[in-house]
Amino acid sequence: MTGKFITFEGGEGCGKSTQIKLLSEYLKQKGYDVVTTKEPGGTEVGQEIRKLLVCGDKDKFDDVAEMLLYFADRRIHLTKKIWPALEKGSIVLSDRYADSTMAYQYYGYNKRIQKSRLNDMYKIVAGDFKPDLTLILDIDVKKGLARSYAKAKTMEVKELRFEGRELEFHENLRHGFLEIAKENPERCVVLNADKTIEELHQDVIDIVKERLGL
Amino acid sequence: MTGKFITFEGGEGCGKSTQIKLLSEYLKQKGYDVVTTKEPGGTEVGQEIRKLLVCGDKDKFDDVAEMLLYFADRRIHLTKKIWPALEKGSIVLSDRYADSTMAYQYYGYNKRIQKSRLNDMYKIVAGDFKPDLTLILDIDVKKGLARSYAKAKTMEVKELRFEGRELEFHENLRHGFLEIAKENPERCVVLNADKTIEELHQDVIDIVKERLGL
Repeated sequence: MTGKFITFEGGEGCGKSTQIKLLSEYLKQKGYDVVTTKEPGGTEVGQEIRKLLVCGDKDKFDDVAEMLLYFADRRIHLTKKIWPALEKGSIVLSDRYADSTMAYQYYGYNKRIQKSRLNDMYKIVAGDFKPDLTLILDIDVKKGLARSYAKAKTMEVKELRFEGRELEFHENLRHGFLEIAKENPERCVVLNADKTIEELHQDVIDIVKERLGL
Repeated sequence: MTGKFITFEGGEGCGKSTQIKLLSEYLKQKGYDVVTTKEPGGTEVGQEIRKLLVCGDKDKFDDVAEMLLYFADRRIHLTKKIWPALEKGSIVLSDRYADSTMAYQYYGYNKRIQKSRLNDMYKIVAGDFKPDLTLILDIDVKKGLARSYAKAKTMEVKELRFEGRELEFHENLRHGFLEIAKENPERCVVLNADKTIEELHQDVIDIVKERLGL
């Protein structure tokens, strides 16, 4: 595949969506074809799955069901959107991808699903395919949650199923993303997200240039 | 678990839903607590998943995504409805369960997903749990499809995603259910469904008495 796949990862309120928008504009100005997307819900069918995952009571299904829905969404996302775009040579920017599943299901929920099972599930849906670059936006948990709550006030559908969980969960999540970065240095870069939007955007551009030459 | 779990399997138009209704009435009259359910869509969340699975274009997602959605639905069905009912001592009658997944995904679609993968996925969601009795209603494919089309005309939402597939698919499906029955004689009984509703109901009652003493 001739395109590039860049994923943005991090806890609630770390600024992923804003940074994706800015990077997309930057790359388009440089003449690249850019596709921005997200997980869960990067496709039309995936949107229906996303609604199940992010809205409503946090105990409406258990860990195993949740994992299967995330991987179903990912499979549809890959086959219907990401892979076709990469085949055409586009740069695909995704707000969350597989590292989020590992961070939430394994680290956030204190190993409630084994790492090996998550890796097996990933292989079922994606084979050996991986992002070309993963940017992990790291921020203090309380600061991130405060941003996330402020944003939710302006949304029509309240997507607060995850924000409602206890602080320890979010601390575990942050730790998880940092562990994932350590284990995958060839693919992951951690960025300090406690900066102004413009400062962080410049850091993102620098890394994208350095790692992918874009 | 003190209850009994009875599943009804078979191709389109074999009469499962009618027979479940009649068996439910029969068992209730005998004083049993009966829960009737179905897959996909046996729970409220599952209903949303069912809509994705049975409505719309047959190519809207691929085999792997479809498999994951069926197993997500099954996990929710088991944890939120089937297991709690069995714990209370109820008799649970389900219109389709795991044998349908094997029949459709492996036999119907000509082995597009390996048997071992389907069995692995089943273990992830259900462990060693199995139905106490599975009734496979067997009927000539053309007769079954004719019944199914006649029924769909009266439905508000047209659930014809599967009926639209070619005849060979349905022949493979029928063959699959018969193979499953052969491989699991302690659990499965094949009934000739090309009979009147009343005759078939009597056969169902006879088997339920013989196998489970109900």
